[in-house]
Amino acid sequence: MFSYQIDENLKLMLSQQHQAEVITKVVLENLEQLKLWMPWAKDDYSIDSARAFIKANLTEYAKNGSFSASIILEETFVGGVGFHNLDLKNKSAHIGYWLAKEAQGKGIMTRCCRVLFNYLFDDLGLNRIQINCNIENVKSRAIPERLGFKLEGIHRQVEWLNEEFRDWAIYAMLKQEWKK
Amino acid sequence: MFSYQIDENLKLMLSQQHQAEVITKVVLENLEQLKLWMPWAKDDYSIDSARAFIKANLTEYAKNGSFSASIILEETFVGGVGFHNLDLKNKSAHIGYWLAKEAQGKGIMTRCCRVLFNYLFDDLGLNRIQINCNIENVKSRAIPERLGFKLEGIHRQVEWLNEEFRDWAIYAMLKQEWKK
Amino acid sequence: MFSYQIDENLKLMLSQQHQAEVITKVVLENLEQLKLWMPWAKDDYSIDSARAFIKANLTEYAKNGSFSASIILEETFVGGVGFHNLDLKNKSAHIGYWLAKEAQGKGIMTRCCRVLFNYLFDDLGLNRIQINCNIENVKSRAIPERLGFKLEGIHRQVEWLNEEFRDWAIYAMLKQEWKK
Amino acid sequence: MFSYQIDENLKLMLSQQHQAEVITKVVLENLEQLKLWMPWAKDDYSIDSARAFIKANLTEYAKNGSFSASIILEETFVGGVGFHNLDLKNKSAHIGYWLAKEAQGKGIMTRCCRVLFNYLFDDLGLNRIQINCNIENVKSRAIPERLGFKLEGIHRQVEWLNEEFRDWAIYAMLKQEWKK
Amino acid sequence: MFSYQIDENLKLMLSQQHQAEVITKVVLENLEQLKLWMPWAKDDYSIDSARAFIKANLTEYAKNGSFSASIILEETFVGGVGFHNLDLKNKSAHIGYWLAKEAQGKGIMTRCCRVLFNYLFDDLGLNRIQINCNIENVKSRAIPERLGFKLEGIHRQVEWLNEEFRDWAIYAMLKQEWKK
Amino acid sequence: MFSYQIDENLKLMLSQQHQAEVITKVVLENLEQLKLWMPWAKDDYSIDSARAFIKANLTEYAKNGSFSASIILEETFVGGVGFHNLDLKNKSAHIGYWLAKEAQGKGIMTRCCRVLFNYLFDDLGLNRIQINCNIENVKSRAIPERLGFKLEGIHRQVEWLNEEFRDWAIYAMLKQEWKK
Repeated sequence: MFSYQIDENLKLMLSQQHQAEVITKVVLENLEQLKLWMPWAKDDYSIDSARAFIKANLTEYAKNGSFSASIILEETFVGGVGFHNLDLKNKSAHIGYWLAKEAQGKGIMTRCCRVLFNYLFDDLGLNRIQINCNIENVKSRAIPERLGFKLEGIHRQVEWLNEEFRDWAIYAMLKQEWKK
Repeated sequence: MFSYQIDENLKLMLSQQHQAEVITKVVLENLEQLKLWMPWAKDDYSIDSARAFIKANLTEYAKNGSFSASIILEETFVGGVGFHNLDLKNKSAHIGYWLAKEAQGKGIMTRCCRVLFNYLFDDLGLNRIQINCNIENVKSRAIPERLGFKLEGIHRQVEWLNEEFRDWAIYAMLKQEWKK
Repeated sequence: MFSYQIDENLKLMLSQQHQAEVITKVVLENLEQLKLWMPWAKDDYSIDSARAFIKANLTEYAKNGSFSASIILEETFVGGVGFHNLDLKNKSAHIGYWLAKEAQGKGIMTRCCRVLFNYLFDDLGLNRIQINCNIENVKSRAIPERLGFKLEGIHRQVEWLNEEFRDWAIYAMLKQEWKK
Repeated sequence: MFSYQIDENLKLMLSQQHQAEVITKVVLENLEQLKLWMPWAKDDYSIDSARAFIKANLTEYAKNGSFSASIILEETFVGGVGFHNLDLKNKSAHIGYWLAKEAQGKGIMTRCCRVLFNYLFDDLGLNRIQINCNIENVKSRAIPERLGFKLEGIHRQVEWLNEEFRDWAIYAMLKQEWKK
Repeated sequence: MFSYQIDENLKLMLSQQHQAEVITKVVLENLEQLKLWMPWAKDDYSIDSARAFIKANLTEYAKNGSFSASIILEETFVGGVGFHNLDLKNKSAHIGYWLAKEAQGKGIMTRCCRVLFNYLFDDLGLNRIQINCNIENVKSRAIPERLGFKLEGIHRQVEWLNEEFRDWAIYAMLKQEWKK
Repeated sequence: MFSYQIDENLKLMLSQQHQAEVITKVVLENLEQLKLWMPWAKDDYSIDSARAFIKANLTEYAKNGSFSASIILEETFVGGVGFHNLDLKNKSAHIGYWLAKEAQGKGIMTRCCRVLFNYLFDDLGLNRIQINCNIENVKSRAIPERLGFKLEGIHRQVEWLNEEFRDWAIYAMLKQEWKK
């Protein structure tokens, strides 16, 4: 029911159980692409996976305010964006996101991230936002680069995905660097 | 962060911890009035009460989708509306609400309830919405009466409040009676 | 092991696990009748249902003193009577009961309820006892009517049972009305 | 509410929270004697101790059927008898008991134990009942000796009580030895 | 990883999950003998049994310091020794142990027990160590007898094992009796 | 009780509650130095802090095998070394350590780390070990540099310590790079 209106046809929404079916459909349509980068995108993804994710996500939100929002473009679910590893003591969090194929190339994720960063820096008072991208995931790395994040390092073999170890590019932005 | 826009200057919002201060301020300003009807409105209400309420509310939302939303009028917190006793087996819920003095008399609660009823009947698939009002609370009883609820009975001495037993007027509306 | 002797051949007993078999037998013999009114009386009722009920019942009793007692007529299990929704703050509870066919028509439930009401009003200090009956359940409604309860209202479509919504007649008695 | 009638003026009762005051009064009157043998009988015994005991006792009863019953002589609380260390796999339990001074010397505990043993051997199907007595507690040791238990051993320094180690006499009775 | 070196070729080790396979192998090789005395040694013993035991054992160790150590002879797992029923209030514990056939007759268990008793009496400050042996288990009874324990009693039919009740010989040693 | 012997006078030990006093003493003696880098080293450090740490550490060990070991030099506690963020899915962990002043400069930590790395790469089968050092902590950074770790990046303002944000140097070693 609850959402954040970004502009006329784009909004972020806190998904609920009665939206599990829609999420499942879009994930399955994009599964081939998602499997390349996302550890949760597995061949046996089903409506139960979506339900478990929604429940875990809302529970996290209740516990500490961190969430993964659904991206809604013209009333259609097209992806997710959110943060995890919220660390209020050190005032930092990690960002994650994905977008369905047909919604890519329109600057949607950049607009979503801007809203999310304002929330994290201003409402939650964070000081540092980190984004971890698979080094070969060019589209994903374009987001922090376009938004002015600094590349802080390459973590080698830090993730086991699809039967091989993968490297991550670590990007970060500090509050003082963020110009709205 | 997340809200439901009702019209240009009115919205419902799922409150988060960083909004506890605002809620506390408005509750304390309206405490004399609220104490007459609300069991949670006590002389020792403080920001900790607001924080505990926000946490319990989000936890319920995560568990079963029931919530109590903040009412935001022109970016100002002016009250709450929500539902509890959500019973998915029998497809019913109870509604509760309150409004700060300066926001009363403008049809705000009626507009909020309309939105909430659509959500309960359509998205959650409920069949029955019940409202319990203290029989002497004329303003509160005006809401279900204006919205076409049926008065189903008077429950005698059903609540112990301010050192005396109070009677409730029980109103209900069925899905088949609800015309949007 | 523990019971409350009502008169020479009638007693209430707090059932234990080793009595699950007896309860199951009587429930199954009366299943056709019970299915009309009781949400727990389902076609797949088995000794596991009885065991789960006994455990939940004793756990409730340990937590807050509410219970559902077995009715024992001449050493034979013939039904149940108890209370739930115990609300010590508002000093109220709801009563529920059922009786096997061959034990009906002898005033047994009336005698059991008298004992239970004394316990609730005197030992637990309650102020209000409520009984919810399906409006078509004539035998069940006869109990509160015979005992002098007041009919406070009809709640429409408040229970989903056997694939249709059912109405409840709501009866209540206050402590001041109870003459032993 | 629930009890087991032993004879005309003696019964066992499963105590509830509203009986905490009565229990506390009798324990405090007998505290000097009880402190000699019972680890729970401490100088700071209060109604909170009684409440915690009642709650723990009912919770155990709900979980596995073991209990400590109140002994009621002519409607007066005079002590406790019960069992713990219930071991359904090995079909055994330990018995414990205490009696207020003014109720001693009347064969009350022997009558209570007889009832309890029937329950344990017949209803719960146990095979072995054990009683651990401080070796210097002559009155306590008289119970298993009068009831025909066998002294199986002396466990040296097995309990730390009142700043010294105490020895226990271990008595046991097997089902095959129990003649009702 | 962590162990206690007893002498050049004998040590005690706190087993971890990656050692489950080794434990399982030795238990299965000795199953016929172990089944005679040990309730956990069942025909369906598998690596899952070993894993569950390791986890429960480490959890106990974390909670209160009690453990069951693996006996390692020349880098080979040959049995277990440990304590349970740790009672810090009464300063006592029970010892248990078993040894693979090919490691018996070399005084290994006596050496292990000496180390364990020093730990229990000196580091944990216990006052009493108890060993319960099946009365027919001659090899097991030889341990407390060789170490100077006192036979305190025979508990009749205290364990249900392999479809019959078994008697235990109860041995104990007090701190004052222990000469290193 | 349990330890890992590194060489004649150096060992790692899994600390238990009865060692809390010793740990507290050494931490307090080194508090000025530790406060510069360790978030847990606070002015109010006490034996309760040590006890809580020991309990949490053993609980983690029971749950997933990760631990922080005490470093014992000639029977004296001189510091700690261990790992956290154990990630069995991605086969990685983070290392942490500290050493009392009087034990520094003797190559102790290098010897401890070698043992720990063998355990992590060989027994637990990890692929990547990461060390996060405050960029200004020269002594701490000397460890991964001496052991051949690769500096993968600098994470800016990633820790809030002593009222300012601190940068971390991120070092990592892969299994294929580790020569024993």
